[in-house]
Amino acid sequence: MGKIVTLGEIMLRLSTPGQLRFTQAHQFDIHYGGGEANVAVSLAQFGHDAHFVTKLPKNEMGDAALHALKSFSVNTNFIARGGNRLGIYFLETGASMRPSKVIYDRTNSSIAEADLADFNLDEIFKDCTWFHWSGITPAISKKAQVLIKAACQKAKEVGATISVDLNYRKKLWTPKEAQEVMIPLMSYVDVCIGNEEDAELVLGFKPKHVDISKGELSLDSYQTIFKEMKEVFGFKVIATTLRESFSATKNGWSALLMHQDQFYVSKHYIIDPIIDRVGGGDSFSAGLIHGLLKMKPQDAIEFAVAASALKHTISGDFNVVSETEVIELMNGDQSGRVQR
Amino acid sequence: MGKIVTLGEIMLRLSTPGQLRFTQAHQFDIHYGGGEANVAVSLAQFGHDAHFVTKLPKNEMGDAALHALKSFSVNTNFIARGGNRLGIYFLETGASMRPSKVIYDRTNSSIAEADLADFNLDEIFKDCTWFHWSGITPAISKKAQVLIKAACQKAKEVGATISVDLNYRKKLWTPKEAQEVMIPLMSYVDVCIGNEEDAELVLGFKPKHVDISKGELSLDSYQTIFKEMKEVFGFKVIATTLRESFSATKNGWSALLMHQDQFYVSKHYIIDPIIDRVGGGDSFSAGLIHGLLKMKPQDAIEFAVAASALKHTISGDFNVVSETEVIELMNGDQSGRVQR
Amino acid sequence: MGKIVTLGEIMLRLSTPGQLRFTQAHQFDIHYGGGEANVAVSLAQFGHDAHFVTKLPKNEMGDAALHALKSFSVNTNFIARGGNRLGIYFLETGASMRPSKVIYDRTNSSIAEADLADFNLDEIFKDCTWFHWSGITPAISKKAQVLIKAACQKAKEVGATISVDLNYRKKLWTPKEAQEVMIPLMSYVDVCIGNEEDAELVLGFKPKHVDISKGELSLDSYQTIFKEMKEVFGFKVIATTLRESFSATKNGWSALLMHQDQFYVSKHYIIDPIIDRVGGGDSFSAGLIHGLLKMKPQDAIEFAVAASALKHTISGDFNVVSETEVIELMNGDQSGRVQR
Amino acid sequence: MGKIVTLGEIMLRLSTPGQLRFTQAHQFDIHYGGGEANVAVSLAQFGHDAHFVTKLPKNEMGDAALHALKSFSVNTNFIARGGNRLGIYFLETGASMRPSKVIYDRTNSSIAEADLADFNLDEIFKDCTWFHWSGITPAISKKAQVLIKAACQKAKEVGATISVDLNYRKKLWTPKEAQEVMIPLMSYVDVCIGNEEDAELVLGFKPKHVDISKGELSLDSYQTIFKEMKEVFGFKVIATTLRESFSATKNGWSALLMHQDQFYVSKHYIIDPIIDRVGGGDSFSAGLIHGLLKMKPQDAIEFAVAASALKHTISGDFNVVSETEVIELMNGDQSGRVQR
Amino acid sequence: MGKIVTLGEIMLRLSTPGQLRFTQAHQFDIHYGGGEANVAVSLAQFGHDAHFVTKLPKNEMGDAALHALKSFSVNTNFIARGGNRLGIYFLETGASMRPSKVIYDRTNSSIAEADLADFNLDEIFKDCTWFHWSGITPAISKKAQVLIKAACQKAKEVGATISVDLNYRKKLWTPKEAQEVMIPLMSYVDVCIGNEEDAELVLGFKPKHVDISKGELSLDSYQTIFKEMKEVFGFKVIATTLRESFSATKNGWSALLMHQDQFYVSKHYIIDPIIDRVGGGDSFSAGLIHGLLKMKPQDAIEFAVAASALKHTISGDFNVVSETEVIELMNGDQSGRVQR
Amino acid sequence: MGKIVTLGEIMLRLSTPGQLRFTQAHQFDIHYGGGEANVAVSLAQFGHDAHFVTKLPKNEMGDAALHALKSFSVNTNFIARGGNRLGIYFLETGASMRPSKVIYDRTNSSIAEADLADFNLDEIFKDCTWFHWSGITPAISKKAQVLIKAACQKAKEVGATISVDLNYRKKLWTPKEAQEVMIPLMSYVDVCIGNEEDAELVLGFKPKHVDISKGELSLDSYQTIFKEMKEVFGFKVIATTLRESFSATKNGWSALLMHQDQFYVSKHYIIDPIIDRVGGGDSFSAGLIHGLLKMKPQDAIEFAVAASALKHTISGDFNVVSETEVIELMNGDQSGRVQR
Repeated sequence: MGKIVTLGEIMLRLSTPGQLRFTQAHQFDIHYGGGEANVAVSLAQFGHDAHFVTKLPKNEMGDAALHALKSFSVNTNFIARGGNRLGIYFLETGASMRPSKVIYDRTNSSIAEADLADFNLDEIFKDCTWFHWSGITPAISKKAQVLIKAACQKAKEVGATISVDLNYRKKLWTPKEAQEVMIPLMSYVDVCIGNEEDAELVLGFKPKHVDISKGELSLDSYQTIFKEMKEVFGFKVIATTLRESFSATKNGWSALLMHQDQFYVSKHYIIDPIIDRVGGGDSFSAGLIHGLLKMKPQDAIEFAVAASALKHTISGDFNVVSETEVIELMNGDQSGRVQR
Repeated sequence: MGKIVTLGEIMLRLSTPGQLRFTQAHQFDIHYGGGEANVAVSLAQFGHDAHFVTKLPKNEMGDAALHALKSFSVNTNFIARGGNRLGIYFLETGASMRPSKVIYDRTNSSIAEADLADFNLDEIFKDCTWFHWSGITPAISKKAQVLIKAACQKAKEVGATISVDLNYRKKLWTPKEAQEVMIPLMSYVDVCIGNEEDAELVLGFKPKHVDISKGELSLDSYQTIFKEMKEVFGFKVIATTLRESFSATKNGWSALLMHQDQFYVSKHYIIDPIIDRVGGGDSFSAGLIHGLLKMKPQDAIEFAVAASALKHTISGDFNVVSETEVIELMNGDQSGRVQR
Repeated sequence: MGKIVTLGEIMLRLSTPGQLRFTQAHQFDIHYGGGEANVAVSLAQFGHDAHFVTKLPKNEMGDAALHALKSFSVNTNFIARGGNRLGIYFLETGASMRPSKVIYDRTNSSIAEADLADFNLDEIFKDCTWFHWSGITPAISKKAQVLIKAACQKAKEVGATISVDLNYRKKLWTPKEAQEVMIPLMSYVDVCIGNEEDAELVLGFKPKHVDISKGELSLDSYQTIFKEMKEVFGFKVIATTLRESFSATKNGWSALLMHQDQFYVSKHYIIDPIIDRVGGGDSFSAGLIHGLLKMKPQDAIEFAVAASALKHTISGDFNVVSETEVIELMNGDQSGRVQR
Repeated sequence: MGKIVTLGEIMLRLSTPGQLRFTQAHQFDIHYGGGEANVAVSLAQFGHDAHFVTKLPKNEMGDAALHALKSFSVNTNFIARGGNRLGIYFLETGASMRPSKVIYDRTNSSIAEADLADFNLDEIFKDCTWFHWSGITPAISKKAQVLIKAACQKAKEVGATISVDLNYRKKLWTPKEAQEVMIPLMSYVDVCIGNEEDAELVLGFKPKHVDISKGELSLDSYQTIFKEMKEVFGFKVIATTLRESFSATKNGWSALLMHQDQFYVSKHYIIDPIIDRVGGGDSFSAGLIHGLLKMKPQDAIEFAVAASALKHTISGDFNVVSETEVIELMNGDQSGRVQR
Repeated sequence: MGKIVTLGEIMLRLSTPGQLRFTQAHQFDIHYGGGEANVAVSLAQFGHDAHFVTKLPKNEMGDAALHALKSFSVNTNFIARGGNRLGIYFLETGASMRPSKVIYDRTNSSIAEADLADFNLDEIFKDCTWFHWSGITPAISKKAQVLIKAACQKAKEVGATISVDLNYRKKLWTPKEAQEVMIPLMSYVDVCIGNEEDAELVLGFKPKHVDISKGELSLDSYQTIFKEMKEVFGFKVIATTLRESFSATKNGWSALLMHQDQFYVSKHYIIDPIIDRVGGGDSFSAGLIHGLLKMKPQDAIEFAVAASALKHTISGDFNVVSETEVIELMNGDQSGRVQR
Repeated sequence: MGKIVTLGEIMLRLSTPGQLRFTQAHQFDIHYGGGEANVAVSLAQFGHDAHFVTKLPKNEMGDAALHALKSFSVNTNFIARGGNRLGIYFLETGASMRPSKVIYDRTNSSIAEADLADFNLDEIFKDCTWFHWSGITPAISKKAQVLIKAACQKAKEVGATISVDLNYRKKLWTPKEAQEVMIPLMSYVDVCIGNEEDAELVLGFKPKHVDISKGELSLDSYQTIFKEMKEVFGFKVIATTLRESFSATKNGWSALLMHQDQFYVSKHYIIDPIIDRVGGGDSFSAGLIHGLLKMKPQDAIEFAVAASALKHTISGDFNVVSETEVIELMNGDQSGRVQR
């Protein structure tokens, strides 16, 4: 299968065991994760030649992140080494009405301060067929914005499909800052993943024919919004997950895809219990990329939703599932019967 | 904020990890807990100057209990040291239809055998604005009864509000023994926390106008009962939690407050899954005290219920939540969305 | 109480902690389990003189399996020692829509290669009142088939009741192989445990008056099937559990018993969450044996279902519950209230 | 092999993991141990029909202690059930110059309050060939003194050899109290295990020809002392371990045996590192009993010392070693080469 | 006892369990530590009114550091809250010839960017009798240099004794930078702790009469150096530990004190095994402060060395020992015998 | 650097945590290891393009072994998938005089039953500069013998250096069987690693001028033996480690190299404590290969010994050290000082 490139930050994730609160913990479980890294891991599990591009400090913390990526078969040849530090995020997993909490400690990370010269974009994008990034990466620093723009240009040159997960992060930038950077970048984007809230915050997009201030949207409204987004930004494909947050433990989960002006709605899942919902969106993006590359649109969105539903049952940011497992679920087996 | 005093026993809690049964365990998780200690910890989290009074053995087990209290900002200056031992309770956490089990090993504890002379009640209650205790404390020994009575008198002298959680414990005394001790003590009590069952067992109270032998009571019946209790015992405030035990993992949760002859019913929560329900009642008492001190009655009962709902999602006896977190829940956010 | 013998394989079970996937695990939890061993453990918990017969390698892995059995009061006097290895199975526990997975690594185990000469059947079955085995045991090897047949004969000689759990395992043999071996063995069987699917695969049984190809069966259909099975095989008692697999975490659970041509349907339970469903069927068999020995038919099936419902809330293959606990549940207390 | 009976207390041992201090621990490792129980476990590992007699509370803590004994093949048929509680001891393991610490919480345990009527001594001592007890048992209560005396008488009646480990415990009684109880009991004893310090404290024994106030004794002095002890108390066999405490991690270890007026000195071992020295003396007693029953005196003392040296390398009170392993060490293989 | 103030940085310490390498770890053990925080904890254990001054971020990571300090009875009333982050250090514990490794991730921490205005120095130093800081604090930022200078002035004003641990950290500053800052600060210092290497790097001190380029120094040479240091800087007391690093597991340990021109050499210890040597120097400083406040000089240095020897046997940065335990060791009991 | 190929078996290693005995363990730590796999991992850490060739079952156990290899940067492109099972070995780590124990459960593994057709030897050995294997691989099955022979031929064709670690395993074959297979294979070997004992068992080699029946050999005797081995088998390089087994915790460690008829003796290390000695020999082989490829003979043997000394301080089979760390140790820094 073709070469896929993702570019962004991978962080050390320190999560309290079980559902312990931060002040109760005496150990942290170690995971590694970050939007684009999670996508690369998923794609490698589905059999793709997935490359993750970032910069890691030249110390054992950087080595350990590299170990994690390699163990899941991600190609790490283009990861630069150097800089100050590995970004960190702390995670406390909630339960029932108690939400999970994330504390970021990611400023001045090696990738945030990486220069264009750290990467040989010609080599990286040689034979690349798909490039994926998220709205988090340009949010981490000016330098990262330069990098993302150059990467988009190079990806475009080699004819790769470009997908973006809008992913607004309020701790990293304001809507105004986001829009200044992100709107111009949309000209490179073929596949846009995000909901109306992200579109408003990140792209300054306000639908003309739908009032999004009134809470939950109907599928019809979403379709109207997607059509308008296509008009404004020229996206070929738009998709969003539709999460219903009943509690930290129980969510509804489905998705909507617009592909060549057709709409495709996925099956609806109830996920109960959620083991770990961090990385849920990334597993959807990866499932969608895989689906769009190998399946018809309806199957693509079903694959993406089934993949990300499974992610919620798995500890850590990475979606440790095979293509076969996802297909079994999308084909209808939710019974959870023991597989002997 | 004003000084609050609670007095009682804190025990070493030894619980099996996960949901292991006692005979399966090869390790115990260490927590510390006890009705009044739990209330003090909660109040300290809400920002109060919370003092817990007890007696701990002069060995490392006593030191460790002290560490736990101090780490949660409880004032431990009035804790006496000496005596035989730290009381222990063993906890096996259930799941679904399998109930949790508690085995007490608390006889002859230092606080059960403490003398009045171990405590300088003048110092302890100086500037005290609220005194809280539970029906467990006088149940542990004759000496503890003497102590509680003296404490109530001193608290009354300094003008503190006095609250009691009736909390009948059948392993510690009979209803007859309980009533002989508890009924006279009620003359000191301003705020009574407990349901009709506790009232019957601990106070020998049988409502005239409600038949409590027929299972679940209506809110109307509870109101009638509360009115009658007020008449008999003169409580200014009466409150009770209303627990629906669907299983060891899933409970319904709400509460009723009578305040100046007005009734206030809280929102109703479904807690699923329950991580640890021990200390749920104590977190309600603490939430109520905080609410009554800082809020209007309806908010007070909402705060108390939201605080104790959150407690069910947290390991250990202590309710490790901040005032802000409780207020977010009582204001309606049960979605469990990740807080980044 | 009388002596009960079970005969089969016990394996080392290596399960990933929590709900970790196989490739995420850095530790395995150690348990021991196997159909007949699980039944023996349950019966020992209910107070029976339960003997488990197998062959274990003469090394520390064999010793450790023996420790586990002894600690749960199973009589291990007739366990032979020697041969190659202890069978192993790897278990990954699922959650929500992600199923649990079992990987068997049991070929060439000591019991699979055991000779008749390894066992003194006269001694083993002396005073035996009940003999239980499952369809797994003859599936593991030709030698095991010889052993099971000889054991059935001996059990018959001493007048013991013989029960079988049909338990088809597709990784061990084909339906054709199974039927060649199992059908003749049915002549020894008094009590048959299994559903229509097992009956078809293991016994080649196809009901004349029920079409089992159309998914879920009604209770009426089951009754018809049971009657036909009795006609064909002469079983005195037939029972089956009725599992509804909503997800890996949530199951419906009930059972049907035919006893002296009467039918008995148990209460219906929702088990949520399931902690560990491996060994659920074995705990039912053990509960049924205990019930049939000590209770009337309706109580027997209630006991069996309550026992196995509890099993689903307990880690490991063994059903670590007492008779008292089962009776409390079958008498209706599903509330999960803390037992202090 | 013949039936051996030991009688005493078994406690729940709660030890901090690794070398954590008490106030640092958030979990306790669970073990079970007690002088005579440890001896019974060792003897069962060496192949004896070892019976441990005690009384355990009728709750899951008592069950768990029983599980531990059974898993190591100790015969528990004569263990009474009932009473208040299982005794507990807390253990913090030291390192280098930091000593290990033990906190006892054993008062009012079921065995301390057991009555003679709890035990059928006729049954217990039927066919008994050896009875072992320690100076700890009569120290725990008056009732235990009655029990030990009756047991000694019964053991004598059936012709069993009686061994005692003097084992003075200053937290349980004073030398004066000890001597009043223990001196009369010595008339039953054939084999006495203890050093000059224990002999002085427990038996009030002061050697005439050796000055024991001057620190470490020579082997000659020990021989003189043993001869004098024999004269006074009539012991047939006297033995003592000779521990050199260099640090909590490193000890020298050897022993001296007087048997039919002959002296036998064992090899000298350096144990480094010590994994767990609790139960070291008990493993020596068990090794000596096994040795005296099956070997010549020199081999007996070598076996006892090698067994107890190995104990120091094993976590928990129980000496989990086989006769074969002890013999390999006593035959000289201290190389620690991997056994494949 | 009098009030003691220490000021500096406390970090989250993330250490791999056991002796795992960074790339092998899947969990980190959580501790908190930092030079001056460690000293404050030690002093609180010895019974002092120890205040630690720092700035912690206003998030749960800051809360957790606060919990740790409070649990060990450190007064945290003067800790400011706010700023970016809690500094972190990663620790891998070595063994034998493999050294331990520390990776710092402490830039931009809240204390490094704290302003003088964050602290009310008048309140902090009111009634202060001793002020301790280390050369690490001014190394972390310019702002910290301002803070340390102001604190020294205030301490001097109130008549407190001022001690410094020179502690050169090459990752934080160059010798040149260090000397520019540190030499002027020495005018405030009464008690200087450090060896000739630190003195050279931090103070630019080169002894006239000793050649320190030739490896290990004799005690005579140290005495000469100390005298010269006193002449140059006017210290009243100078002390240094004398560590012999045989391996990561085994060290020699002693110390030298110059007090009123007299020299005092401590006993010499072999520490084997070392459980955790991080914080060893800080425990010496704390022991010395306690010793100088309460004992004669020879006892003071013996106390400091014994305290820090014990620290090497304890996990974490904090020296969790009582005054009694240190005195027992300094009085000669290194036997490691179990304390029952 | 050039491509290096190793070929053999990798097993799932299940080791008891800490120093627990097999019958005490309730969890196993998961590692992966095997002679040639360990060598490949080491070489990848030193920066080589290291390929490991084996066959793994097509299940998650095989996947997990693959994860482990990939995470340490071993090239796994030529690993075949299929067959029955992953070989397993159980490890109990000893301490002091208690030896470590290994129980093998490796029969019928996928690699033992692999066919020549599973591997494309042309591809595997293309551009290969070094091929390493051990005497364990041909011992596991006839098929493996065929495979090793074909691999040696292909390696010879492409001009690769061939090294063998003789490594006799008595559980896998007899000396007679070994010699029949191994002697002919020696004609391919350039570099032979093993001691006189292995040479005798595996190669039937008995030195003419040295009597090896008399225990420890002098260096002179070793030199004589090496010269004779060269004469008989034509090895260009011969090397052996010289282990002194003082206990399971403490070993002496050095090595001897014969290179172009010159002898090189390494430094001598005392390793105390040993954390994990499994894989010690493999880390020596890898260090020697690296050394011979990049250094002069004396440095090569120093590198090999330092690398393998470090291995003894690291958990698991894999030698998780960098070239830099080994060089620091071989250059003399054994002090274990903390590296900050």
